[in-house]
Amino acid sequence: MDDMLHGSIAQLAAQIRKGELSPVELIEATLQAIDQCEPQLNAFITVFGEESLEGASRAEAEIRNGKDLGPLHGIPIALKDIIYVEGTRSTAGSNFFSEESPQFNAALVSKLKSAGAIIIGKTNLHEFAFGVTTENPHFGATTNPWDPSRVPGGSSGGSAAAVVAGCCAGALGSDTGGSIRIPAAVCGHVGLKPTYGRISVYGVLELAQSLDSVGPMCRYVHDVALMMNTLAGYDFRDVHSENRPVPDYTEGLNQPIRGRRAGVPKQHFFDNLHPEVERTVGDAIKVLEGLGVEIVELDLPSVVAGHEVTLTLLMAEAGQFHQQRLAKHREDYGVDVRELLEKGLSLSASDYIKAVRVREIARREFAGTFEGVDCILSPTVPIPAPLRSTHDLSGGSESNHIRPRLTQNTRLFNLIGLPSISVPCGFAQVENSDSKEGLPVGLQIAGPWWSEKMLLQVAHAYERATPWHTRNVRRETFSMDN
Amino acid sequence: MDDMLHGSIAQLAAQIRKGELSPVELIEATLQAIDQCEPQLNAFITVFGEESLEGASRAEAEIRNGKDLGPLHGIPIALKDIIYVEGTRSTAGSNFFSEESPQFNAALVSKLKSAGAIIIGKTNLHEFAFGVTTENPHFGATTNPWDPSRVPGGSSGGSAAAVVAGCCAGALGSDTGGSIRIPAAVCGHVGLKPTYGRISVYGVLELAQSLDSVGPMCRYVHDVALMMNTLAGYDFRDVHSENRPVPDYTEGLNQPIRGRRAGVPKQHFFDNLHPEVERTVGDAIKVLEGLGVEIVELDLPSVVAGHEVTLTLLMAEAGQFHQQRLAKHREDYGVDVRELLEKGLSLSASDYIKAVRVREIARREFAGTFEGVDCILSPTVPIPAPLRSTHDLSGGSESNHIRPRLTQNTRLFNLIGLPSISVPCGFAQVENSDSKEGLPVGLQIAGPWWSEKMLLQVAHAYERATPWHTRNVRRETFSMDN
Repeated sequence: MDDMLHGSIAQLAAQIRKGELSPVELIEATLQAIDQCEPQLNAFITVFGEESLEGASRAEAEIRNGKDLGPLHGIPIALKDIIYVEGTRSTAGSNFFSEESPQFNAALVSKLKSAGAIIIGKTNLHEFAFGVTTENPHFGATTNPWDPSRVPGGSSGGSAAAVVAGCCAGALGSDTGGSIRIPAAVCGHVGLKPTYGRISVYGVLELAQSLDSVGPMCRYVHDVALMMNTLAGYDFRDVHSENRPVPDYTEGLNQPIRGRRAGVPKQHFFDNLHPEVERTVGDAIKVLEGLGVEIVELDLPSVVAGHEVTLTLLMAEAGQFHQQRLAKHREDYGVDVRELLEKGLSLSASDYIKAVRVREIARREFAGTFEGVDCILSPTVPIPAPLRSTHDLSGGSESNHIRPRLTQNTRLFNLIGLPSISVPCGFAQVENSDSKEGLPVGLQIAGPWWSEKMLLQVAHAYERATPWHTRNVRRETFSMDN
Repeated sequence: MDDMLHGSIAQLAAQIRKGELSPVELIEATLQAIDQCEPQLNAFITVFGEESLEGASRAEAEIRNGKDLGPLHGIPIALKDIIYVEGTRSTAGSNFFSEESPQFNAALVSKLKSAGAIIIGKTNLHEFAFGVTTENPHFGATTNPWDPSRVPGGSSGGSAAAVVAGCCAGALGSDTGGSIRIPAAVCGHVGLKPTYGRISVYGVLELAQSLDSVGPMCRYVHDVALMMNTLAGYDFRDVHSENRPVPDYTEGLNQPIRGRRAGVPKQHFFDNLHPEVERTVGDAIKVLEGLGVEIVELDLPSVVAGHEVTLTLLMAEAGQFHQQRLAKHREDYGVDVRELLEKGLSLSASDYIKAVRVREIARREFAGTFEGVDCILSPTVPIPAPLRSTHDLSGGSESNHIRPRLTQNTRLFNLIGLPSISVPCGFAQVENSDSKEGLPVGLQIAGPWWSEKMLLQVAHAYERATPWHTRNVRRETFSMDN
């Protein structure tokens, strides 16, 4: 049972093909896990019970009859509830859309379905994906699976909690300022924000069009690579999708990383770290060094300004997207999101242009940086999962203090469209936490545009060298047999 | 004398190398032409008399001594007065900068100087390059060399008038909404706006950073190709400069264009044409067809919206750039420019983002278009040079009506960064014109990103097939011997 719920997609796929596991059995166990976890986690807005079981029966028959659609065939995947699935509601965490259902699939949903994946449910999120806590005013808070008094990170917190608790084998999130990587870090799984334009966002409700990416959230690096093989590629319906060759992300994943050069930024990324985050990420860098990675100090002067202007772009673009709806239905927005949208709408063209100019300088600087290093290492989040009580949505002073820290190290990579991955790198021992293991910490590895394959290789080498961070602890902690 | 003043750079360079022409003689004649024309044209803000003669002596000695810097060596080139030349004022057509001198050369000036070109002077322009008439409130109006009662087009009108009147062998202009191509069309010479990022704008005072290009303005297509060989290329100091290989633009210029496919847009570009523009451009298209070009109709639905939002981006970006200066020195701006800047500063981030979104859709549409055709044909300007009296700078009703028509067919290519060239295609017979030949009309040929070489081939084939539009008429009309 635990193997089934906490194993990797690759293992599950192999077992299915050997006849050791049936997709129906897997989906039944997953639905049971959801039933068991939901009272505490509140990770899902919609669960597709019957449809998933039907899909599993179909997958089982297809695979038996030689119509094998590949490693995702029969595998339960959860989707953040801003991703359109034809004929079912897609709330985006708001009340606006709870009565209507999109009449088409998001591009990535079509791809997942063609690969035989079972969409097990739609996960909870911060309202309109515009926040980092997953404290949703309409659908309630998702809790951190390690400690229910803490946030799961946001905005893809429902997907993260579901992945870690065994309520799906993998999930899709969206990431505009860190919303895949932050929950991945504070919930303890692998999350990849791909290069801007790598995976189509057609059929994903936008937050901020120049920053939005969608990406896979899985327990293992190899699973993220598998998902990328299905999801990456050009789509003319997404105006930012780029027509570039898609590599096989699983091929060469075991390749040694000896000789790679990794940069550790002097500025910003290691500022104001929680001491336990500093310790675990420091250890992680030593592990990579032990694997033969050359660690070099990096000078990134435009980083601080870059991080600041990302918020300007985010608020302005989200404001533009919601302008008409907000004018008509102001009261139907949560307080925190409304404030951000209104702030965005108060910005001038000149404010926005200044931010774009900083973006262009940062982009040029990073292009130069990657002539000297293969990737950039940092903590994904400078602190462990904060207490939910510090995150009241009225925007109290403590909340205002902690919120920007959650995106401190992630949002710059949205600004300039770089891919970055968060991989679990240990546990922070925090005094007032319920978690006996501590709270997960994530190592962020960012690379040049279109370097997902290299990032996955580095993350995979790290993961293999440190299995205690992932499978053992997770399996033990979230065992259904306990 | 006329050969010298109206010949091509290629001819002049060949004569210099054969010892038939001395650079000193050429510069002397050019300075004499400037003296003779300036009372009527007012094309120059600054003329470098002595420096040019010294440069010519140096060039003459160098070439004699075997230090040959190539075809621009000893050739008089004029620069629009927003291009920085170390140690000399660069007014940008305003009073703000008339007292100070930049302490560095624009990237393109360094390149021209390395190629041995003689910078003969700095040309008049619309204030801050923000207008299409070259009616400058501080430096006076430049007149159209064919008819002094008419505008030379703008904002690079001084450069255009100088090229046509024989006051330089070639010039540099800048083009944010058409400011190279419009004066090229209405003054009757060749002007190329290259792909955004092809020529460094480092040291060129910006107008609107996402739209600005600089490019060559010459009497002959071959000369534009020669200039491109010197000017194109990567420059890290220009954040939008792209690091791409630079072809030899003169190589293969005579290649036949048979089999090329040229698109004629159904929407917008042929709307509201002056009948004489319609006739001449129609004839030009037939000439190309005669050369073996396949003419196809093009559907470009996003063109109209694209043309509109270009003005939004232009005003907003120019407003941002001038924001602080305008707040302090409002009265020192001309009325028309101040109005546009203030309109730009009143725009919201949301307005700007909406425009960016239209740009992205147009860019995607044109990428698709160029899968089916090599280039797009249109009139450069839908009307012949308007009378100066319709262009009073207070923005009267007639002016408001005509101004946007001048950029009707050019500004979309700034919006999406495409290269486009204007080549003379005949003369419009206009009743109330002083010009016995009529008023020049330009054919605009636009191509995909980085296709300058192909555009030059098409323009060159057209020019060779129609010599009466260019050398003969121009030489006769502007003869110094008359």
